Amino acid sequence: MRHGGDVETFRQRYGRDFIDFSSNINPFGIPDEIRDTIIKGVPELVSYPDIQYRKLKTSLAKYLNCSVENVVVGNGVMELVDHAISQFPKALICHPSFVEYEDRAKFHRLEIENLILPFPLEVNDSVGLLEKIKKGQVVILGNPNNPTGYTLKKDFLIKLYDLVCEKNAFLILDEAFYEFTECGYDSIELFNDRLDNIIILRAATKFFALPGLRLGYGVTGKLFKKKLEEGILPWSVNTLAMRAGQEIYKLKEYISSSQSYFLEERARIFKILDSLEEVQCFPSQANFILLEFKNTSGDKFLSFMLDNGIIVRTCDNYMGLDQKFVRFAIKSREENNKFLSLLEQFLKG
Amino acid sequence: MRHGGDVETFRQRYGRDFIDFSSNINPFGIPDEIRDTIIKGVPELVSYPDIQYRKLKTSLAKYLNCSVENVVVGNGVMELVDHAISQFPKALICHPSFVEYEDRAKFHRLEIENLILPFPLEVNDSVGLLEKIKKGQVVILGNPNNPTGYTLKKDFLIKLYDLVCEKNAFLILDEAFYEFTECGYDSIELFNDRLDNIIILRAATKFFALPGLRLGYGVTGKLFKKKLEEGILPWSVNTLAMRAGQEIYKLKEYISSSQSYFLEERARIFKILDSLEEVQCFPSQANFILLEFKNTSGDKFLSFMLDNGIIVRTCDNYMGLDQKFVRFAIKSREENNKFLSLLEQFLKG
Repeated sequence: MRHGGDVETFRQRYGRDFIDFSSNINPFGIPDEIRDTIIKGVPELVSYPDIQYRKLKTSLAKYLNCSVENVVVGNGVMELVDHAISQFPKALICHPSFVEYEDRAKFHRLEIENLILPFPLEVNDSVGLLEKIKKGQVVILGNPNNPTGYTLKKDFLIKLYDLVCEKNAFLILDEAFYEFTECGYDSIELFNDRLDNIIILRAATKFFALPGLRLGYGVTGKLFKKKLEEGILPWSVNTLAMRAGQEIYKLKEYISSSQSYFLEERARIFKILDSLEEVQCFPSQANFILLEFKNTSGDKFLSFMLDNGIIVRTCDNYMGLDQKFVRFAIKSREENNKFLSLLEQFLKG
Repeated sequence: MRHGGDVETFRQRYGRDFIDFSSNINPFGIPDEIRDTIIKGVPELVSYPDIQYRKLKTSLAKYLNCSVENVVVGNGVMELVDHAISQFPKALICHPSFVEYEDRAKFHRLEIENLILPFPLEVNDSVGLLEKIKKGQVVILGNPNNPTGYTLKKDFLIKLYDLVCEKNAFLILDEAFYEFTECGYDSIELFNDRLDNIIILRAATKFFALPGLRLGYGVTGKLFKKKLEEGILPWSVNTLAMRAGQEIYKLKEYISSSQSYFLEERARIFKILDSLEEVQCFPSQANFILLEFKNTSGDKFLSFMLDNGIIVRTCDNYMGLDQKFVRFAIKSREENNKFLSLLEQFLKG
């Protein structure tokens, strides 16, 4: 499986609908205010979006608590990742991670160094990451990381970025799942006064349940922002994504309800999974969990789940993982219970 | 003025709203069926668009009367233009034309040859275009061309493409304004059985009045399609653009009403302009007209029009044009009459 969320392929193959545990979207759904804003905005599709995205950037700066002069926007986080990667001659990519990092680095013909981080992960000096960083290199890290769900410890992240600056390298910190975490720090706040060697990426896609809208945003130094914006095509963020992004900073209630839910639900699911002999599960800070089967394969599990109307993400195309791994999203309690009961049924086999 | 449609800049500068004659959008507005489809599609933003855009491509193939295997889609025509340009080492760009052609060719570090076509234009062998085409080069042409509004004669286009194939060059034919024309041929039909050295681009932006939605599409050979799709990011067309594009082939009534209107209105406006001593206007096949002032500048006209609540497109950043040129959109009859009466007032000034 190349990407999660490819429901259409399974729909066509099996002629039925599925519950999608393969893409990681907040089960709280599209926030009501955002849905209303989008519907109200439809008549405005008749005009181009603001080519400079002034209100959008101002609103995002308010939400992200940074200066508007450091905000960039894109047609999903992928557009920003892609343009950021294209600025460098060589990359250090930590694995397992989102497969597009390596794909885009290959596409732009970077010299790539792949580093498989020890797993399950306790990121600290001993993993060898710090020693690998080279001058002029772009280091790409997910935080929390997909598909493992781990976050970097605050002290380690600071040490890492210190070194990145010292070596005149650059850090792409993909925080598309940031709002789901309870990592105890905000990397934008941490590095707000020294953003020259980093871009911190976030998105409406996952937490605000809007993968179809395509809105990603990032915080970076002014010089790098300028370089990125020279490359990004005019009007790349559509009018409705722009309008929606202008309202995100208002969603305090949606944010806190979602966060409370995930804090509790993640712990509940983890406890159940931890009690199962036949699987190993890895502590996650995101809205998904990575599982390793001890005696069977992810493909067999996928096949069993498809028969029961559920798609999960097999993980054999992640460097550092193999056929024994699957990733699944944390969805509504009811859906999660269905998933867990099917998993137990599968394991009893 | 770098681009038309930048209403926000003028709105902020003057603290008032404007009628926008600087972007070329069909005054019939968003088709009712498309607006309904978009609104109905809003709940689907909670899922990723189909990563392969199967239904979208099938529907577009039906609309464009070509094979689905030749259809590519992008986040606006610009994304397709950009990725197409990036495939080549050198470009031949005909001017005056859409400023992004040259900008993107520069961005991708192509060796650029600029050719200013004689003006007013009768494209035929004598203009020197055919002699300039070189092996491995990408030739970029608008048809109808922006900002001049002319279309290529059918025989010339065939001769041009024959030569492009013979020289193993490639033609980007930007037909974003195609549906407005009465050029008497369909380039997709003309080249349907030999698409290997061409991409014909069209869009929902102009004719279907959806610049804010970002939907461009193109028809090309299978090999070039494969190359383009390797570069285009996953999910680059948003879910609502995808849904809208799936309905375009049904819009027969909207298409024919718009075409009748433009046929008549273009002729009516041209006749009025042609009677004015102080301007030269150029026959257009699109929904905009290029004007040259004999004794004054486009900037002075823009300034006068802004005072009267109207934005027009000055043309001094088009290679081959100068400060004497302005471009304006053909809008509703009432708006056009307002425009024409202000123009006469300005000229008497």
